[in-house]
Amino acid sequence: MNAFDTTARGVYLITVTPFTDSGALDLASTDRMVDFCLERGVTGLTILGIMGEATKLTADEAQAFTRQVVQRVRGRVPVVVGVSSPGFAAMGELTRAVMDLGASGVMVAPPSTVRTDDQIAAYFDMVNETLGPVPWCLQDHPVATGVQMSPAVMLRILKQSPRCVMVKHEDWPGLAKLAALRAASDKGEVGRVSILTGNGGGLFLPEELSRGADGAMTGFAWPEMMVDVVAAHCRGDVERAHDLFDAYLPLARYEQQAGIGLAVRKHLLHSRGAIASPFVRKPGPRLSERDVADIARLVRRQDKRLAELV
Amino acid sequence: MNAFDTTARGVYLITVTPFTDSGALDLASTDRMVDFCLERGVTGLTILGIMGEATKLTADEAQAFTRQVVQRVRGRVPVVVGVSSPGFAAMGELTRAVMDLGASGVMVAPPSTVRTDDQIAAYFDMVNETLGPVPWCLQDHPVATGVQMSPAVMLRILKQSPRCVMVKHEDWPGLAKLAALRAASDKGEVGRVSILTGNGGGLFLPEELSRGADGAMTGFAWPEMMVDVVAAHCRGDVERAHDLFDAYLPLARYEQQAGIGLAVRKHLLHSRGAIASPFVRKPGPRLSERDVADIARLVRRQDKRLAELV
Amino acid sequence: MNAFDTTARGVYLITVTPFTDSGALDLASTDRMVDFCLERGVTGLTILGIMGEATKLTADEAQAFTRQVVQRVRGRVPVVVGVSSPGFAAMGELTRAVMDLGASGVMVAPPSTVRTDDQIAAYFDMVNETLGPVPWCLQDHPVATGVQMSPAVMLRILKQSPRCVMVKHEDWPGLAKLAALRAASDKGEVGRVSILTGNGGGLFLPEELSRGADGAMTGFAWPEMMVDVVAAHCRGDVERAHDLFDAYLPLARYEQQAGIGLAVRKHLLHSRGAIASPFVRKPGPRLSERDVADIARLVRRQDKRLAELV
Amino acid sequence: MNAFDTTARGVYLITVTPFTDSGALDLASTDRMVDFCLERGVTGLTILGIMGEATKLTADEAQAFTRQVVQRVRGRVPVVVGVSSPGFAAMGELTRAVMDLGASGVMVAPPSTVRTDDQIAAYFDMVNETLGPVPWCLQDHPVATGVQMSPAVMLRILKQSPRCVMVKHEDWPGLAKLAALRAASDKGEVGRVSILTGNGGGLFLPEELSRGADGAMTGFAWPEMMVDVVAAHCRGDVERAHDLFDAYLPLARYEQQAGIGLAVRKHLLHSRGAIASPFVRKPGPRLSERDVADIARLVRRQDKRLAELV
Repeated sequence: MNAFDTTARGVYLITVTPFTDSGALDLASTDRMVDFCLERGVTGLTILGIMGEATKLTADEAQAFTRQVVQRVRGRVPVVVGVSSPGFAAMGELTRAVMDLGASGVMVAPPSTVRTDDQIAAYFDMVNETLGPVPWCLQDHPVATGVQMSPAVMLRILKQSPRCVMVKHEDWPGLAKLAALRAASDKGEVGRVSILTGNGGGLFLPEELSRGADGAMTGFAWPEMMVDVVAAHCRGDVERAHDLFDAYLPLARYEQQAGIGLAVRKHLLHSRGAIASPFVRKPGPRLSERDVADIARLVRRQDKRLAELV
Repeated sequence: MNAFDTTARGVYLITVTPFTDSGALDLASTDRMVDFCLERGVTGLTILGIMGEATKLTADEAQAFTRQVVQRVRGRVPVVVGVSSPGFAAMGELTRAVMDLGASGVMVAPPSTVRTDDQIAAYFDMVNETLGPVPWCLQDHPVATGVQMSPAVMLRILKQSPRCVMVKHEDWPGLAKLAALRAASDKGEVGRVSILTGNGGGLFLPEELSRGADGAMTGFAWPEMMVDVVAAHCRGDVERAHDLFDAYLPLARYEQQAGIGLAVRKHLLHSRGAIASPFVRKPGPRLSERDVADIARLVRRQDKRLAELV
Repeated sequence: MNAFDTTARGVYLITVTPFTDSGALDLASTDRMVDFCLERGVTGLTILGIMGEATKLTADEAQAFTRQVVQRVRGRVPVVVGVSSPGFAAMGELTRAVMDLGASGVMVAPPSTVRTDDQIAAYFDMVNETLGPVPWCLQDHPVATGVQMSPAVMLRILKQSPRCVMVKHEDWPGLAKLAALRAASDKGEVGRVSILTGNGGGLFLPEELSRGADGAMTGFAWPEMMVDVVAAHCRGDVERAHDLFDAYLPLARYEQQAGIGLAVRKHLLHSRGAIASPFVRKPGPRLSERDVADIARLVRRQDKRLAELV
Repeated sequence: MNAFDTTARGVYLITVTPFTDSGALDLASTDRMVDFCLERGVTGLTILGIMGEATKLTADEAQAFTRQVVQRVRGRVPVVVGVSSPGFAAMGELTRAVMDLGASGVMVAPPSTVRTDDQIAAYFDMVNETLGPVPWCLQDHPVATGVQMSPAVMLRILKQSPRCVMVKHEDWPGLAKLAALRAASDKGEVGRVSILTGNGGGLFLPEELSRGADGAMTGFAWPEMMVDVVAAHCRGDVERAHDLFDAYLPLARYEQQAGIGLAVRKHLLHSRGAIASPFVRKPGPRLSERDVADIARLVRRQDKRLAELV
């Protein structure tokens, strides 16, 4: 379960990037956060995504953070790095840099400028040329990119991309699309590909597992939710998977809010001791007192519900 | 609680438009659906919205359906009609027609072509000129329209629109925006306006009520959920409001899926006896066997959970 | 040259809708405008498009205007009616109404909501079902619709649409795309289709004719420019076609401005005596004094240049 | 006329980035191109824009190219560098790097993610914080960015941005907007700001100068066209300005095509001896034989027309 290849399963957690209260990159918290995730059973880490505030890091910071994560992980799970970029030159440079630092692979979403099936396919031809032998994950995230990829065009990309080992499925929620991709992979129309889902922070995880997802790639301040849901599903206890999921759903829903979601996540990770500060760099959301009160209520209710679940 | 004016509260249900199995407008089911909603305590009905398949009705059908709803309601609750249109001529014609049939007011969302604050404000100047004395609801639904309205521009619209009595808040989830509008209304910067929320079928309803929403305007096959949540909140029992909400949340989340959501809702309304057929006109989603199985599981689990709640 | 079928050639003029100074539909000017166009050699008329202020007409006005145009034309050239609509019910109703009034066919552009090749193709399946035996023109206008149709998807639509007799090519300027469509039609990959171009009011007309366009479908206050350019090109005098085109280009460019373009066109048509009033209904652009001065200069320069051309 | 400040006038040419036939950065051609521009009278150079293929350059290449341009220019005209970026960290890094290399200032366009007036204003607050004392140019280019900035929001930005010395006006064509900005600057509502226009490669240059533009910032393989048009306008010979402009318009129009425009420009610059190779890096357009034939015809006709003009 430990390679970044087409057999990948489980939970690849999208991590935040920890800062100190004064906004500096916090490498000590980086270690703490890595430990926090691994102790909860994640099978991979994805860094430098949108929720990792990648665009607010200098090139030096991005490399320092990547180095720290890779070193702390010590090969126990794959580390995947987001390298989506307006230009292929920058994408290639960042890919080479992070692979040199020991990353396991990269993740690419299409830019908002591509629209037609032919444009999308041509874009990923260039991605393949740019990444060369590096294994990569295709991120399908229409809400963020504005790019809608039909099942047909995704299969076309997979056929032309021998080093694409994983799909991050975020077409909200797209159960039919997920099922179509899995069926094509099962029938041998394309090679086996790992499909991890990220819709709204896993807001459809139980249903997605039933449609053939291999797990989740998303962020949530309780990674153990996803780990436990996937485990219950794998051992065939679908009702237990739903019970666990339902217990976390009210808070997960709140953490996935557009706008303040990242501030909610860092607030929760900080309160759980995973990072030293909930600091979000500008431009970024701030929590109001009412937001904090909402969160406190939801955490209290979640604790109660989990206690009843045992 | 029964007038379509700035004092409106409670639950304005967004209704579907019932068809027979062969696709004809089903006026008998229209009566049944109206009764179903009123028996569950809704305080208003909103018809001919996106989820009402308005664009699939001929002008004659839209009027026949409106007439039927108004006649069945017999003035017990307000009936609001969606009249958003690419042109003001059509908007004016439909408005006059439905008001003549006895509707209480109309609802308007901005078209996807307006972008800047000045364009948005100018658009609603034309809306005011078009609607004249008709009371109307401002629909803020960026996910569907692509139009982002800041609190500042919404207040500007409210100031220039004496007949705008209600805001349908769907800026997902936009708790801060809702709080800002309510505060401006409370402080007298604008006149009192009713604020009903519709985010994702009410997926943030308990939090929105705490921020000052007067209730919900959205669709869900269990309108009693929203009615009961609002009632619990109004009598100060916030935990009970959350308990109720959480019990319905897994299914509400499923019914709010982009794409197949309408088919899920009609399937559920049909299974509850509110309409005679789950038929959705083309172009529209169809449920797969797996979708139906998902729904069955979620209903079963919801029933169990509700039984435990009492 | 006189049927709305796959042999259509020449200039289909996109007409304005004339109003009186007080904003009423002006049926007398409608006759005058029809005569103005036919006297200048247009081979077809296209009405109720964006530049025809279709969304500002009531249903009754749209039918009255269509009736007047058809009666005045008396079958001398085809009359094509824009019927793009957010819903198929409205599209079908308008199509039936205008065909009953004697229109020759209709024109349809995809709505901004379709994105992927599969969505676009599915949309036009519904168009075919809606229009039935009515001959129609496929409008490819990405600047207005936001929908990008690759040559591949356009050929797919043509294959599935036996009654689609014409493409209005407005993918700015898209000479390669035009050439690809023409080549596919010439090679028999799809049936023969008429291709008329409308880019920026014909701002690439000479080059488009060289790539295989059958003529132009667009608006310009000097329809004789397009008629003469097409005629020169047809008799093999490409340099003359360019000479004529270049003489009108500075003013054509000005009339094609986003925003005030329609006001410029009506101002010019009024000054040429084609319509009684330059009135544009709200919401719509108004010319400033400086705009009027710009136009006067450009007309004066154009007159001088044309005089030199003889 | 030689400082990058609010007095800037004339023609700031948007330069291409020259490559060799094998795709390497061509520093010898960079010198040649700088000389070509300065000999034709440009008053500034703008590098690393969209038409400069900035996203296809590595960070090292971008710096090497900037260094070469600055060194060749030797302070004779300002050099402005495009630094628009998805993140402020990258924007700040690139700005510091190019200013250290001797650039005169930078240019920033808003990202496609900002929509409302408040979002736009907040974005430029962050730009000011990021750029600090560096003088900068506000690029208003809705066709490329999707961001529509009303005159009101642009004035708001100018008021909050003491180091914003220039507006690059590309709101196609937006003569009324340009006039409004100039009027506000003349009336002292905001400080004096230089306004250079770039619409469609200067396709409205004569009219824009009449509305108060200080010149042009755009690319065209004949920079002398813009230099001469501006000069004629400055000495009050508006008809001569139009005569010159009209002579170049057919080719300028062709060079401004979406899609292949950059390939046309490099083809022409190569044929004029300004760069050693017309190479465009991938992903980028290629000219067909027919495109080349079109261009040859237009150049031949332009030469003839210019000869007649003298």
